[in-house]
Amino acid sequence: MAAGSVITLLSDFGVQDAYVGIMKGVILGIAPEARLVDLTHEIPPRAVSVGALLLRSAVDYFPSGTVHLAVVDPGVGSARHPVAVFTERGVLVGPDNGLLFPSAMAMGLRQVRCLEREDFFRLPVSQTFHGRDIFAPVAAHLTAGIQPQELGSRLLELQPLHLPQVREERGALHGEVLHIDQFGNLITNVPAAALRTFPAQKVSVRICGMSIGTLSSAYAAVPEGAVLAIVGSWGMLEIAVRGGNAAEQLRAATGTSVIITGEHRSVD
Amino acid sequence: MAAGSVITLLSDFGVQDAYVGIMKGVILGIAPEARLVDLTHEIPPRAVSVGALLLRSAVDYFPSGTVHLAVVDPGVGSARHPVAVFTERGVLVGPDNGLLFPSAMAMGLRQVRCLEREDFFRLPVSQTFHGRDIFAPVAAHLTAGIQPQELGSRLLELQPLHLPQVREERGALHGEVLHIDQFGNLITNVPAAALRTFPAQKVSVRICGMSIGTLSSAYAAVPEGAVLAIVGSWGMLEIAVRGGNAAEQLRAATGTSVIITGEHRSVD
Amino acid sequence: MAAGSVITLLSDFGVQDAYVGIMKGVILGIAPEARLVDLTHEIPPRAVSVGALLLRSAVDYFPSGTVHLAVVDPGVGSARHPVAVFTERGVLVGPDNGLLFPSAMAMGLRQVRCLEREDFFRLPVSQTFHGRDIFAPVAAHLTAGIQPQELGSRLLELQPLHLPQVREERGALHGEVLHIDQFGNLITNVPAAALRTFPAQKVSVRICGMSIGTLSSAYAAVPEGAVLAIVGSWGMLEIAVRGGNAAEQLRAATGTSVIITGEHRSVD
Repeated sequence: MAAGSVITLLSDFGVQDAYVGIMKGVILGIAPEARLVDLTHEIPPRAVSVGALLLRSAVDYFPSGTVHLAVVDPGVGSARHPVAVFTERGVLVGPDNGLLFPSAMAMGLRQVRCLEREDFFRLPVSQTFHGRDIFAPVAAHLTAGIQPQELGSRLLELQPLHLPQVREERGALHGEVLHIDQFGNLITNVPAAALRTFPAQKVSVRICGMSIGTLSSAYAAVPEGAVLAIVGSWGMLEIAVRGGNAAEQLRAATGTSVIITGEHRSVD
Repeated sequence: MAAGSVITLLSDFGVQDAYVGIMKGVILGIAPEARLVDLTHEIPPRAVSVGALLLRSAVDYFPSGTVHLAVVDPGVGSARHPVAVFTERGVLVGPDNGLLFPSAMAMGLRQVRCLEREDFFRLPVSQTFHGRDIFAPVAAHLTAGIQPQELGSRLLELQPLHLPQVREERGALHGEVLHIDQFGNLITNVPAAALRTFPAQKVSVRICGMSIGTLSSAYAAVPEGAVLAIVGSWGMLEIAVRGGNAAEQLRAATGTSVIITGEHRSVD
Repeated sequence: MAAGSVITLLSDFGVQDAYVGIMKGVILGIAPEARLVDLTHEIPPRAVSVGALLLRSAVDYFPSGTVHLAVVDPGVGSARHPVAVFTERGVLVGPDNGLLFPSAMAMGLRQVRCLEREDFFRLPVSQTFHGRDIFAPVAAHLTAGIQPQELGSRLLELQPLHLPQVREERGALHGEVLHIDQFGNLITNVPAAALRTFPAQKVSVRICGMSIGTLSSAYAAVPEGAVLAIVGSWGMLEIAVRGGNAAEQLRAATGTSVIITGEHRSVD
C-alpha cells in the first residue's frame, strides 16, 4: 500500500453527529494522502449483522489494497477484540464481533491480528469510541505499510457471523430476504448460481403468498407496477416492482421467506 | 482533463445502502487521483425531472473539465441509451432519459456519444446497475482524457426534458414552484432577469392566496416570521419566510402557481 | 498551510439539495488539492448553538492548520460580519453569530478578521448564500497561505456564544443535557474533570427522576437495558442505556437537568 490508498468507512454513527468526521480527522492527521470513501453510516444502531451484510456487498468493488474500516460495536470497552484482518485483497479493521467475518471469507482470509500496540492508537483510549481511538488510527497507519506482526498477537479464529443460507428440500430452494434497499427491492440470499439449475421460463418464485413465473432480464421487461424476479446487482435473486416499491406492495421484510421451484435443467 | 479531475455524483440511491460507495470504489480503481464530490443522492426514487433540476442547479459552480456522473435511471436495462455528453464546460455521463438535458443546454452542448465500447465498462454488465458497470467506469476513464469517438457512435439528439417555463400574459408573469429546499424556501422558475422589467418596490407576487408587495434584498430585511420574495441563490425568484418554513406556512408544493405583476419599468 | 490542506464543512443545509456540493465545487475550483471532510450538514435549520456545539465537538481531532468552514447563518445578508478566526490550531471561517465562538476559545484565539476583500469572493455575491460566495472561496484561498491582514480589517471581539455551564451548589453539581446523539446517548455539560472530586463508587447522578449510583467504565459494564453514567467520548458525563436509547427510555431532551452528588474525595 502506498500514498493515496483507499480507506472505506462503514458505521452505525449516522450523519447528524460529527463522529464520522472526527474519525476522518484522525485518519488525515496520520495519513494525509488517504482517499476516504463512505460506504454507509446508516446501519441501524448496534445491528452487527446488517453492517456485516452491507460491508460484504461492497468489498468486491474496491481496488486491491483497500483498507475497510467498519465500526458497529455494541461491545466497545468489553472483552471483544479490536482486530485487523489481512486478506488477499485488502485489510479489514474493526471489532471482532462478526461484523468483518463475511467479508473476510470473501476476500481470502490470510491472518487476523489483535490490535494491541498502543503506538498505533490515539491516546488516551476511551472506553466508548474505539472508532476514533483505535480503529481509525490503525487504518491510517496500515496505509503506510506496517506489517501484521507489528500490530499485536495473532488470533487463530475470527468471530463467525453466518448470513442465512439457502437450503434445498425436495427440489425446491428455500431462501429469505436478506436486505431491503432504498428502492424497496428485496435482495434475497439466493445466489445467481443456484438459479441456473432452473429454466428461466419455468422457474416459480413464491413470496408473500404470490407466485412469479419467470425470471426477468431487466426491470423494464415487465409492465409498470408489475412484480418481477431478477438476478440483481448483488448477484442474488431480487424481487422488485417496476416503478414501485416491492417491500411496501408485498409487505415483505428482512427474513421473509422465498421459495423457488421449477423443472430441473440437465447440467451440460 | 488531468489527474486530480473532479467527478461529481448525483443519484436516487440514498445513503443507507452501499451503492454510492460501490460506484466510488469502481472509479478509484480506474482513476485513483479523481476528486469525488457528492451533489445529492436523495433524489426521490426514479424522479428524473427532480434529478435534472438539481444537477442543473450545481453544474455552474464546478471547474471546467468536471465530469458529472448522474444516475436516476428507471429504464436501466431497457432501450434507453447510456450516454456521455460533451459540453464546453465538462462532460455529463448517465442515461439518456432527460436527466442530463437541462445541464447539457446550460453547459454548451458539443456532442453526444452513445456508450458502446465495452473496454470502458466493468464486465459483466448487469441489467440493473449501470451506475456501477457502465457510468462509473466511463466517468473514471474520461478523466484520463479519452476522446469522444472512442466511446461509441454519435447521437444526433439528446432526449429532451424541459423544465416548466414562465409565460407572460397581459403583462403578468405566470410561473410555478420548481423546488422546495431544506429550509422550506420555494424556488420558482422565474429568473432574476424576468423580474427586471418590474420596479422592485411595485412588484406584486401572488402565491397561495396571498400577495407580497415588494422584492426584498435579504432574508433579514423583513421581520421574523414574515413572508418575503427575493432573488435567491439559484438566480430565481424565491418565496421564503424569515426564520421559518415557507412551504409549511403557505402550504405550497412543487408546481404551486406564482403570478408576478407590477408597473412596467422603462427599459434603459 | 500547503497543498493537501484539510477543509471541514458543517452546515444546516441537509443533503437533499446540492448546496453542499456547490460549496465543494467552488472550493475545488480555487484549491484543487484541498481535502474536504464533512462534519455534519444535519444541524436543524438556523440552530446556531447546535452548530456551535457540534463544531466544538470535532475540532480537537483535526490536524494543525485545518480550515473549518461552518455555515449556520440565519442573518445572511444582514449586518452580521463574515469572519475568519485565526487560532493556534487552525482557522475558522463563517458568520460572526456565535457559531465559531466555542471552537475559537478551545483552539486558542489569535485574531479575528472581517471578510471584506472581494478578490477572495465569488462575484457577484448573493444576499442569500454566503456559504457559496464568501465562506467557501475564502476557505479555499486560506489553504494557499494568505495572511490575515489580506482578508480585511481586524475585529477586536468575536460574537460570544456560551454553552451552558455547570454550577456547584452545596456540594452538588447542577448540569444539563447538551446533546442527544444518534444512539440516544445523553451528552451532558459536566466535564470529566468535575467528576474527579467524587469517588466513582459513591457518586449519585440524578436525571429524570431516577438515580444512578456509580460511574461505569464501559457501556458493557452493566446488563443489557440498564441505565448507566459514564465519561463518554466527548470527555463529558454521558447517560446511556446499554443496548438501548436513553433519550427515549428516560424521556430526556436537550436541556434536561442532571444533578451529581457524592462524598468529596480528598484531593491528593
